Amino acid sequence: MNNFSFYSPTKYVFGRGKESLTGELTQWMGSKKVLIVYGQGSVVRSGLLARVKSSLDAVNIEYVELGGVNPNPTDDRVYEGIDLCRRESVDGVVAVGGGSAIDTAKAIAGGVPYDGDFWDFFAGKVVMQEALPVGVVLTIPAAGSEGSGNSVITKIDGLHKISLRTESALRPKFAVMNPELTFTLPPYQTASGIADMMTHIYERYFSNTPEVEVTDRVAEGVLKAIITEAPKVMAEPENYDARANIMWCGTLAHNGVCGTGRQEDWVSHFMEHELSAVYGVTHGAGLAVIVPAWLTFMVEHNPGKVAQFARRVWDVVEDDDKKAAIEGIERLKDFYRSIGMPVTLKELGIENPDIELLVKKLHENKGEVIGGYYRLSAKETTEIYKLAL
Amino acid sequence: MNNFSFYSPTKYVFGRGKESLTGELTQWMGSKKVLIVYGQGSVVRSGLLARVKSSLDAVNIEYVELGGVNPNPTDDRVYEGIDLCRRESVDGVVAVGGGSAIDTAKAIAGGVPYDGDFWDFFAGKVVMQEALPVGVVLTIPAAGSEGSGNSVITKIDGLHKISLRTESALRPKFAVMNPELTFTLPPYQTASGIADMMTHIYERYFSNTPEVEVTDRVAEGVLKAIITEAPKVMAEPENYDARANIMWCGTLAHNGVCGTGRQEDWVSHFMEHELSAVYGVTHGAGLAVIVPAWLTFMVEHNPGKVAQFARRVWDVVEDDDKKAAIEGIERLKDFYRSIGMPVTLKELGIENPDIELLVKKLHENKGEVIGGYYRLSAKETTEIYKLAL
Repeated sequence: MNNFSFYSPTKYVFGRGKESLTGELTQWMGSKKVLIVYGQGSVVRSGLLARVKSSLDAVNIEYVELGGVNPNPTDDRVYEGIDLCRRESVDGVVAVGGGSAIDTAKAIAGGVPYDGDFWDFFAGKVVMQEALPVGVVLTIPAAGSEGSGNSVITKIDGLHKISLRTESALRPKFAVMNPELTFTLPPYQTASGIADMMTHIYERYFSNTPEVEVTDRVAEGVLKAIITEAPKVMAEPENYDARANIMWCGTLAHNGVCGTGRQEDWVSHFMEHELSAVYGVTHGAGLAVIVPAWLTFMVEHNPGKVAQFARRVWDVVEDDDKKAAIEGIERLKDFYRSIGMPVTLKELGIENPDIELLVKKLHENKGEVIGGYYRLSAKETTEIYKLAL
Repeated sequence: MNNFSFYSPTKYVFGRGKESLTGELTQWMGSKKVLIVYGQGSVVRSGLLARVKSSLDAVNIEYVELGGVNPNPTDDRVYEGIDLCRRESVDGVVAVGGGSAIDTAKAIAGGVPYDGDFWDFFAGKVVMQEALPVGVVLTIPAAGSEGSGNSVITKIDGLHKISLRTESALRPKFAVMNPELTFTLPPYQTASGIADMMTHIYERYFSNTPEVEVTDRVAEGVLKAIITEAPKVMAEPENYDARANIMWCGTLAHNGVCGTGRQEDWVSHFMEHELSAVYGVTHGAGLAVIVPAWLTFMVEHNPGKVAQFARRVWDVVEDDDKKAAIEGIERLKDFYRSIGMPVTLKELGIENPDIELLVKKLHENKGEVIGGYYRLSAKETTEIYKLAL
């Protein structure tokens, strides 16, 4: 087990109707005037935004708004939000939505107190020291951003989709999680969220760090729970308990508890980020395509942990590691298909991907050789994109 | 799944030599002069206390000391610590040791800013609103107090051993966790710690709250890891990785992540606290005796979750719930015996327990009817103590 630091100071307030506590929690995080960040309007139509506002009103917290944030959120809205916060002397940010709203809120929160261009943090030029406090009212269980210190933003100029990781500067102070708010998610978005949270676990699980039994077992446990609950939320979108399990799985998948003490991987995310940036696909659906290809590559190059994954998560009974791994990957693909996810680029709607471009941007953004579980240069990432065709 | 709030803002700094960061972390938690609380002198003999002090010296943090805290720590030392802190204008507490030192440190930290008798909190008369910040350098993986908001103190007058639970007031700000510090723990203490952490999971796991798949799976995962790693630490006390896994299991067992969204039980702890208070036995060893008796009672009264425990944690293959449960309990007892734990009161050295006294004190301290998984009055708790003979 590697040395580690784990610090997850987000207050999770979970259950029916808990969005009514947003005002009280915003007070608790020390803000008097906040920027509310939200997405494409479903939070307006559902009345959630109005409920959040009235909760802020009730404790005399002022607010301004930044709505219309897109999926795969872009830097233009971040600049806009930073300007707005400075102009209006805002001292906190509340995201109402899923990963896109939250990641935009976080990037704004980090940018406001910083003199330079906020992109400096994403470009790795500067380490973030401070940020406005961020609170979250979660509506999409997927990105896990409600419990992570991370933010993923796409720079429009050059379509660079980049993930920033902070230990604690960008961890939300609170996250309101009401599973009822997810009842109306369209099936494709529900399933994409499931593929996304599962991949957050894989990125940590597939590791060569030896002797990490406790983290392995926790990761496998959360995956098992997702596999059990996913068919229920797909069949019964208003099944509260299944939605609740999936929602909490999404948080545990990405708040770090599945990654303590081990080297992580993250190549599947990197490879998918290029797909999203170039083809605008839904992140989780892109991951459902990339991951089986990545795993298939590993059968020939580093099958050990893939075999463990097959046996412990997919109940494969097979002594030979390669055979076990192959069977596990088949079961994973069957599972993705069963919830309506694509497992090939073609099924994702990308008939003739420009693999050369994807690989070029991937290594430009992430380095010549990438990955923790197996080191991949352009030759190998090309092969993996081809395995996904 | 029940509504819940989960807030675990402890910074865990885990790995070899990390005690050298104690000064820096104490600065980070905002203290300038601390009370160092420790136990029976092993931290003096090992040189750990000296290393902690030199780390504090290096950043000019002053300190006073309260050493010699006993296992099953008592209120007299808490009063002494509170007086010392007030006299010396201390603004933080650092515990160096295991549960006894940490729980004493916490009780002191809560007592210092409170005008009345600190026991008011433990007696349930007052809810703790504030406390001095507490930091921990952990030497015994067992109580999980390094990550919990709880403290257990015994009132000498009447031998009342009482647990206080706070959501966040008493959560340590930081916990330094170096597995090497546990290499020299005597086997009986190592094994007692293992039984203690496992029981922290059972108290949450055995619940009638339906549809808590994710928390069940996480709890089962941590238990599986303990069962795998325990024989290694018993056979090779200086196996770093096994010690590291066990140490982190002890934290996850009790920081709340295994208890979100469900009713909890805690009867085994309550029943053991009476044993410790009256007979002075080691808490974990007492739990190894009480738990199998409690589970055996449940076979006839509420076997469902015990059967799940048997199948998922102990790999029992058996369709009938009662039969599965009985087989699971046998495997648990075999496991406890294999690490040198007693599984009966007799093996614990209590030949003729005064069950009447234990039951009387139990219900005096905890109420006429106790337990979340199954409601128990004096008749039933008497039966369970008898099952432990």
